[in-house]
Amino acid sequence: MSLLIVGTMAFDALETPFGKVDRIVGGSATYAALAASNFTTPIYQVSIVGGDFPEEEMEALSSRGVALEGVEIVPDEKSFFWSGRYHMDMNTRDTLVTDLNVLARFDPKIPASYQNAEYVMLGNLAPAVQMSVLDQLQNRPKLVIMDTMNFWMDIAMDDLRKVLAKVDLLMVNDSEARQLSGEYSLVKAAKKIQQMGPKYIIIKKGEHGALLFYNESIFSAPALPLEDVFDPTGAGDTFAGGFIGYLARINDISFESMKAGIIAGSAMASYCVEKFGPTRLKEINAEDISCRINEFISLANFEVR
Amino acid sequence: MSLLIVGTMAFDALETPFGKVDRIVGGSATYAALAASNFTTPIYQVSIVGGDFPEEEMEALSSRGVALEGVEIVPDEKSFFWSGRYHMDMNTRDTLVTDLNVLARFDPKIPASYQNAEYVMLGNLAPAVQMSVLDQLQNRPKLVIMDTMNFWMDIAMDDLRKVLAKVDLLMVNDSEARQLSGEYSLVKAAKKIQQMGPKYIIIKKGEHGALLFYNESIFSAPALPLEDVFDPTGAGDTFAGGFIGYLARINDISFESMKAGIIAGSAMASYCVEKFGPTRLKEINAEDISCRINEFISLANFEVR
Repeated sequence: MSLLIVGTMAFDALETPFGKVDRIVGGSATYAALAASNFTTPIYQVSIVGGDFPEEEMEALSSRGVALEGVEIVPDEKSFFWSGRYHMDMNTRDTLVTDLNVLARFDPKIPASYQNAEYVMLGNLAPAVQMSVLDQLQNRPKLVIMDTMNFWMDIAMDDLRKVLAKVDLLMVNDSEARQLSGEYSLVKAAKKIQQMGPKYIIIKKGEHGALLFYNESIFSAPALPLEDVFDPTGAGDTFAGGFIGYLARINDISFESMKAGIIAGSAMASYCVEKFGPTRLKEINAEDISCRINEFISLANFEVR
Repeated sequence: MSLLIVGTMAFDALETPFGKVDRIVGGSATYAALAASNFTTPIYQVSIVGGDFPEEEMEALSSRGVALEGVEIVPDEKSFFWSGRYHMDMNTRDTLVTDLNVLARFDPKIPASYQNAEYVMLGNLAPAVQMSVLDQLQNRPKLVIMDTMNFWMDIAMDDLRKVLAKVDLLMVNDSEARQLSGEYSLVKAAKKIQQMGPKYIIIKKGEHGALLFYNESIFSAPALPLEDVFDPTGAGDTFAGGFIGYLARINDISFESMKAGIIAGSAMASYCVEKFGPTRLKEINAEDISCRINEFISLANFEVR
């Protein structure tokens, strides 16, 4: 099924305990599209880039079934740039530079050819931008999921509440869930967030996996224990892309399917962190993904006599 | 099958964000025996208490199939006492008081009636005390598991290495695994610890569940997401008791059985934290345990199409 992804396409400079890279493509929509395109096409990409964004990256996406009509190119400006340094635990990072560049004027226009999108992922962006996308859709999609971050809770909480009321699923990390709800217990946090709109909540816990909440049901997905996490950049967006890409492929949004979607997303994220930026995501094929999903099955499977 | 448990029997004073209690029975062997006795008997308890340890607590254990011949009673002295205060996240705590009392002279003597023990749990104690128990066993048990803590790594590493070389399974938390191995990655940490002796490593991650390592195989067990953790005291010992009690019941120590044992232990630990000290463990019955194990199955179960 068709999947609309709204988010950033950017350059990142990254420093981890394993090395550094000065300039590599990144952005939430880049990672999400790379992951989702393994499961479903067409992907309707909505983003904004400067004249500096490499044509070969656009072509690589296009060849994976990612439509780029909704990606605005501003020839005389620069793409969004983010630079960060990860600490040894890879769960904490310092942002060194954030140059919004073209992102400051991002006002997405949904092309007519995107209007049949049945699955929608709103990447982490200003809530007003996320809302503008939803407002432009003539038909209610089958599933709308969103990401956000603490920054928007701090400066745009009213706007964020409006978007939350319109989406089916919110995906945040544990500290964001705590901030949004004011609850320390993730079970209580999920209940409070459900009252804000989304029926489904995914709380990402990095190396500890993820939790899916729906009514009184909870699913706990493991993370693959890795010898090394080389670079966690984009893992969350890759997870989101794998998750919704899988659901779009099977075209089913039951709780059971979402559980499987989380495993698919986790498998993609576990590949993402193996190399800098999206490098590893571009290397893997269907067999690799199937193999990694089987690792998750072995990892979590048990039988009590 | 018969299960020998060596550990402390003590009094605790506890303070959590939910309240405080000035004096409640505790100790690793108390929690482990309460948990294990739901799965198997006889349990051969090895510990030391003062004249102040309540007779009704001893009788309660005895009525659950816990043999107390190996529990030395020192009438004129006091039982081990520990006092601690938990922080909001319940993963960190401050020790306020540690009065060793009778524990300072703990030199366990294994009664002849305990010599047929096939399953052995060495609770967190000085490694020399743990070793003394192993040295007294005339037959190699089918399974020996041990707990330890950072304190012994700091002051008795040589003794600890000797015990590690003799046991089948080590159970530690994530920070202890990192300290013992000098590796941040838990996968690397487990590999290094396996080289020290134990073929099986369980790394406990509190609210994030537990990992079991054996050769190249890994099992990731979820923790039950709880609205409130009322008091985490004893959860680790309860987990250990439930784990080895389950294995003793089915009398099988395969990797598959250990996975189920971890779920049984996790179910027991999830009850333990619901009330102060061992209060909740004394209330629950077989049906409660079976019900909680089924919750873990729902929590972790998924199928990828």
